[in-house]
Amino acid sequence: MGLGLIAGSIAMALRKTGFSGNLLGYGRSRERLEQALSRGLIDEFTLDLDYALENADLVILAAPALASEKILRQILPKSNVPDGPIVTDVGSVKGNLLRVALETCGSFPPKLVLGHPIAGSEKSGNGAATEDLFEGRRVILTTLPSNDKNSVELLTEMWRSLGAEVVEMSVTEHDKFLSATSHLPHILAYNLVNVLSKRFEANTIFDYAGGGFRDFTRIAGSDPTMWRDIALANREEILKSMDDFSSDLNLLRLAIEQNNAKSLLDIFTRAKNARDSFSET
Amino acid sequence: MGLGLIAGSIAMALRKTGFSGNLLGYGRSRERLEQALSRGLIDEFTLDLDYALENADLVILAAPALASEKILRQILPKSNVPDGPIVTDVGSVKGNLLRVALETCGSFPPKLVLGHPIAGSEKSGNGAATEDLFEGRRVILTTLPSNDKNSVELLTEMWRSLGAEVVEMSVTEHDKFLSATSHLPHILAYNLVNVLSKRFEANTIFDYAGGGFRDFTRIAGSDPTMWRDIALANREEILKSMDDFSSDLNLLRLAIEQNNAKSLLDIFTRAKNARDSFSET
Repeated sequence: MGLGLIAGSIAMALRKTGFSGNLLGYGRSRERLEQALSRGLIDEFTLDLDYALENADLVILAAPALASEKILRQILPKSNVPDGPIVTDVGSVKGNLLRVALETCGSFPPKLVLGHPIAGSEKSGNGAATEDLFEGRRVILTTLPSNDKNSVELLTEMWRSLGAEVVEMSVTEHDKFLSATSHLPHILAYNLVNVLSKRFEANTIFDYAGGGFRDFTRIAGSDPTMWRDIALANREEILKSMDDFSSDLNLLRLAIEQNNAKSLLDIFTRAKNARDSFSET
Repeated sequence: MGLGLIAGSIAMALRKTGFSGNLLGYGRSRERLEQALSRGLIDEFTLDLDYALENADLVILAAPALASEKILRQILPKSNVPDGPIVTDVGSVKGNLLRVALETCGSFPPKLVLGHPIAGSEKSGNGAATEDLFEGRRVILTTLPSNDKNSVELLTEMWRSLGAEVVEMSVTEHDKFLSATSHLPHILAYNLVNVLSKRFEANTIFDYAGGGFRDFTRIAGSDPTMWRDIALANREEILKSMDDFSSDLNLLRLAIEQNNAKSLLDIFTRAKNARDSFSET
């Protein structure tokens, strides 16, 4: 459900493993579904949610975060039955879907297994899909004790077959961690590009900017709708991460303003050591 | 003078062009100079500044910004004579050297041509030098009307022979532009890494972080001494760039806090369009 970069890449990667099941696409945009069909990503598509649910053993929700919320609210009343399909997602926020599930079903649906492949690209759309997007990457499953063990096992096996390593984490841990390591950097990159394009001619910026700047701002080319949804869906954690960032940035600013050479060297050295130790892992 | 990544790469690139002149290294660290000699980057070295000056037609100042200030203050009284050597530098800040030159000589020395190759790496030291570091890159010369034309021509030819494109810019323009496109991103990357390593175990961060995060924080691996010096040498412009950044970041924070979906989509879309247009240039 939602035939973008991630769902398209799952389809390609599944085919590569020899998967022979039927891949049924669902979405609101006939055009996108037709593209996915013509690219051979799916076997058929439907715009009818009921048809999609009736014919699925596994539903993969791969729309932007707020759209996924809406779809989940629609499908859970039908899917949350003993012989209903396993439902999973691939989104960068988990708390909003957990909340929707609890609101819709009262308790957490056993066959809803929330997941998040840490893989992506600043490119979007199923035209950018690749069959090796998940190879060597991690997939976080935010399972709950009430989850159906077979459903969790099936999803774990699926991701492993696509080359990913599966790890488990709580919904809270996930959203806190992603707010800092992914959501915050995207917001900083978007903001930096906007600040620069207000101050300078767009074409001069990259002409005279170094390679570090290109790397740094690459993620500002990411899909705005997807990131609007993430910003809203993980609002509380993102605000906390932004506040942590700004509070430390103010200290750094103060060190520069006060010509505090020792403090600056300490701050930069600590960061370099941490970055270097990350790189070794 | 200062045998790090940039000077080492200039030496390698010069050799590649068939340059047969004598490359004389000067610095304060005998160990680094001996490394440069054993790597074949230089023909000889000295720890004696007077010897270096007496034997140079062209002096390339390639130390961190504040060290370059000090050396420049020492050499200008001797070099600023009609048959003295051409003096240039490769630093990321120009205003501090301009100020030192005016303070030391009263007027700007004709044969001092300040320059800045927009090339580098998060790796440092002459062991990381490469012969193609400047190929296809831009070199900014911040020439003044009082500059000796032959000196400017010689430097322009030198950089072109190393594969770079030479452009001219005023000192003020340069320092303003670099504060935003290079100095600010480095400060943001250092700060982000520090914020994250306070909140999470260092080894988990990169295990679970995506490729965008790796790209985004790569420059936090840069040499802390070099960046301490840049932060202090270009203090005024960096503070302005940081304030612009923080002021817009606060607006973005407000949009998230107020669940302002339209404003967030606008902000992210504007940045994506600018980033995409950069990439095409």
